Amino acid sequence: MPAGHANATFLRNCWYVAAWDYELIDGKLLARTILDEPVLLYKGESGRVVALENRCCHRGAPLSMGRIEGDDVRCMYHGLKYNAAGRCIQIPGQQAIPPKLGVRSYPVVERDRLVWIWMGDAAAADPAAIVDFPYLRDPAWRGVPDYLHYDANYLLIVDNLSDFAHLAFVHAKTLGGSEEYAYDTRPAAIERLERGFRVTRWHMNAPPPPFHRRVVRNDNRVDRWNVGHMQVPGIFFLESGFAPQGAGAEKGNLEGAKQYRNCQFLTPETAGTTHFFWNYLHNFEIDNPTIALSLRNSLVEGFLEDKAIIEAQQKVLDADPSFRLMAIAADAPLSHFRWTLTKLIAAEQKAAALPAAANTAAS
Amino acid sequence: MPAGHANATFLRNCWYVAAWDYELIDGKLLARTILDEPVLLYKGESGRVVALENRCCHRGAPLSMGRIEGDDVRCMYHGLKYNAAGRCIQIPGQQAIPPKLGVRSYPVVERDRLVWIWMGDAAAADPAAIVDFPYLRDPAWRGVPDYLHYDANYLLIVDNLSDFAHLAFVHAKTLGGSEEYAYDTRPAAIERLERGFRVTRWHMNAPPPPFHRRVVRNDNRVDRWNVGHMQVPGIFFLESGFAPQGAGAEKGNLEGAKQYRNCQFLTPETAGTTHFFWNYLHNFEIDNPTIALSLRNSLVEGFLEDKAIIEAQQKVLDADPSFRLMAIAADAPLSHFRWTLTKLIAAEQKAAALPAAANTAAS
Amino acid sequence: MPAGHANATFLRNCWYVAAWDYELIDGKLLARTILDEPVLLYKGESGRVVALENRCCHRGAPLSMGRIEGDDVRCMYHGLKYNAAGRCIQIPGQQAIPPKLGVRSYPVVERDRLVWIWMGDAAAADPAAIVDFPYLRDPAWRGVPDYLHYDANYLLIVDNLSDFAHLAFVHAKTLGGSEEYAYDTRPAAIERLERGFRVTRWHMNAPPPPFHRRVVRNDNRVDRWNVGHMQVPGIFFLESGFAPQGAGAEKGNLEGAKQYRNCQFLTPETAGTTHFFWNYLHNFEIDNPTIALSLRNSLVEGFLEDKAIIEAQQKVLDADPSFRLMAIAADAPLSHFRWTLTKLIAAEQKAAALPAAANTAAS
Repeated sequence: MPAGHANATFLRNCWYVAAWDYELIDGKLLARTILDEPVLLYKGESGRVVALENRCCHRGAPLSMGRIEGDDVRCMYHGLKYNAAGRCIQIPGQQAIPPKLGVRSYPVVERDRLVWIWMGDAAAADPAAIVDFPYLRDPAWRGVPDYLHYDANYLLIVDNLSDFAHLAFVHAKTLGGSEEYAYDTRPAAIERLERGFRVTRWHMNAPPPPFHRRVVRNDNRVDRWNVGHMQVPGIFFLESGFAPQGAGAEKGNLEGAKQYRNCQFLTPETAGTTHFFWNYLHNFEIDNPTIALSLRNSLVEGFLEDKAIIEAQQKVLDADPSFRLMAIAADAPLSHFRWTLTKLIAAEQKAAALPAAANTAAS
Repeated sequence: MPAGHANATFLRNCWYVAAWDYELIDGKLLARTILDEPVLLYKGESGRVVALENRCCHRGAPLSMGRIEGDDVRCMYHGLKYNAAGRCIQIPGQQAIPPKLGVRSYPVVERDRLVWIWMGDAAAADPAAIVDFPYLRDPAWRGVPDYLHYDANYLLIVDNLSDFAHLAFVHAKTLGGSEEYAYDTRPAAIERLERGFRVTRWHMNAPPPPFHRRVVRNDNRVDRWNVGHMQVPGIFFLESGFAPQGAGAEKGNLEGAKQYRNCQFLTPETAGTTHFFWNYLHNFEIDNPTIALSLRNSLVEGFLEDKAIIEAQQKVLDADPSFRLMAIAADAPLSHFRWTLTKLIAAEQKAAALPAAANTAAS
Repeated sequence: MPAGHANATFLRNCWYVAAWDYELIDGKLLARTILDEPVLLYKGESGRVVALENRCCHRGAPLSMGRIEGDDVRCMYHGLKYNAAGRCIQIPGQQAIPPKLGVRSYPVVERDRLVWIWMGDAAAADPAAIVDFPYLRDPAWRGVPDYLHYDANYLLIVDNLSDFAHLAFVHAKTLGGSEEYAYDTRPAAIERLERGFRVTRWHMNAPPPPFHRRVVRNDNRVDRWNVGHMQVPGIFFLESGFAPQGAGAEKGNLEGAKQYRNCQFLTPETAGTTHFFWNYLHNFEIDNPTIALSLRNSLVEGFLEDKAIIEAQQKVLDADPSFRLMAIAADAPLSHFRWTLTKLIAAEQKAAALPAAANTAAS
């Protein structure tokens, strides 16, 4: 797999986040490229979310320039109308509609404010395979959902999330991680999983990082922990907490601890650009809306620091496809993730290349 | 022929509109790419219009950065001077001028305010082959000539002009065509011609469209007709009229009818961009200049609606060259036009590939 | 060699100007692409100038987004530290550093306010081969160093500097050369050198050009001379002077003459873009700083005239790689220069292709 270059191959038979639910309010026809395919997303008048190929089969006009009618959409170039399954159901001035007229319809599931899409073989789309992040629906947790667009391959962002080493250098003044700890710290413990990895790291007796200090409004030293869980195709959950220094959080005493639950969803737009959906939730003072806003603003600040260096990295890689990266010890998680993903993609492509009969026999 | 993708092949042995005459006043050296070739257009001091290859044969500097001298042009890099035939006639500091020094000169004809250019074999350029639109020189008709640039292949614009079906959907609030009529209307009658087609459509007892209502300043219902005539390479004439409802216009009684004559000339700039020249003329209240201005403004409004959807369509087609369009019944005119043009281009290329001797024998 | 198209091959075993010294003050980490390679330039805390490959060997992040530490630089993504030789000397959280971890280091020499870089085989980098322009360090001469960026291949700028013929047409109102002299002037005398050429031209009894008139504040006619010296890879020195008309400057009487020394250094950024360093020095009224500023401003004005036509020329050449240029008599210097450079590049590439043993035997 290339380091982040163009022409990446994507895993198709899996669920990707296509949108936050709030992006589809007010009858929005949302045009969004996903895995290099033009997709139209909208919420029909029944409340059902629909995902269709975003080009009319007649002359290629974007359906996102069209009009919602019930759960259907009408192309506003020559008036062809499509239902939620993508079938053409009306051609103005023409009685018979050839059955081949239609656009691709993608399986979608709306759950916990996220709209999930399946870009592969529709027959294989099982909603039970959607990964669960219960905090998004749990009233004890509060956060502000948000979106960023990256001019970089999604795996460069996975890399970034896969190590805590960069916190001290990129985010010293925001999410850090002060630099003094970076030099004698061992790489975080990694647990290799079938579809990703889990890393755990504790910082005992540490100064609170700026984003946390802002919402607790004191700078008492803390015992801090992070448990990161990365899953294919690019889904990252982070559980983290800050306990009073010396209170014994590492032995299970969470009294006085402040906790966070952070979810991040990376969806390739193209080989060189990425949709990034995220929400950073907290479970204290949840009636105070300024906490969630402060955390959102701190995280945007931190993500923009990442974005600057990741997009610069993408430009370096684009400029010279012959350039080869060299691994260090801290790369174990990202190496495992890329190896896992490569294996899954290869298996998917091998299955797709089988003749239909063999396919059937194998299933 | 591709649906509007790059690498289109152009018909060369035909006249294209290169400019409106008003674009060449005040000694303007107009740089304009036509069929992917850099062309310089200017009006010499004698009044003669000249079209030359817009690059000095010496070091490639654009002659449009040069200076008109009589009917000649001087490159303002090293001072080489070319006459209207493209011959280099002066090199500062050098006596002898090698005869091969020169640039290509294109046949041009100025007629009825249009500058026509011949991009093919100069020996075959016959001004008698220029299509005539007499209303441009007829004092009974008045209009404002105008120009738009499209980021789209010219055939996508031909397609657009080839059907009236889109009027109800794209132009309901400007040039329309209210939508209610669109669904039970049969495709307009098409007359297939050797170099194009003619379509005729009547709307009886229709509300007047906004652009017409603005200039007649009433909203009496009308019997409305359109006769469109499309010719290779991309020349469109539209005769239209609005008669008082029920007065019998369809039987020839034109009393009280308001008529329009609309010409549109599409000239490929590149495979993905187009020069669009047009004039929408009227023959009533011609001493009132606000009529022509109102019509011009209404038409620009309508063309910008087309431009938005056609340029979006071009982007869709560019993004996926494997995408195949599907025809509906209303496509008969555009299908005939593309078939006609493809045939003419193939014949032209076959003739060009013949050895010179055979060519001579055949002529 | 192409006329200025993409994919040019560069001479590598020679010194190029990478920067003016003033570009590296205040701890600047200067990112500059040279011969298509990403280079980082900085002045270490010891005062030593360092040039490194501008991408971390670990994940490709630009080192120019890093931090200077002594004469070393630290990547601010994951904290890897490199010394001036490009060796990785620290990885946070990791004891052992594999010896292959490192980035390319380029030989650099700071001399007379210029930073020179060697892009070829480091073993062959001999500072004695740097061309000398003593006026930059001579207190009798004063000027303002400056920089321009061109969207054009460097050879198009060499071409421009190689002829005086364009002065009358491009710079009539700035650096000119009035046009009246251009037509009966013979091409300047050219002296062919092993690595370039020298041209000399006198204008007797000429009006002073605007840039000179501005600083001498009179318009007395002058006897004017220019001696241009162009050297590979793209280094241009111009000695010029303006003597009172008829005083006998051409016989060696320089009384009352005002003289200038102009150096210009062209360094390819890519095949289609160029770094242009220059300084136009004078040796009269050197305690008056407005003279140097006026000359700098006049020259910028003139260079922008060149830049407009050269960048237009580059676009013409890019648009049609099949276009062939035609030579005129005035092209003798540029033709000689391109022939010289082509020969040197071919020899360098032939040597590089030899097996190592043969290489050794040959040296």
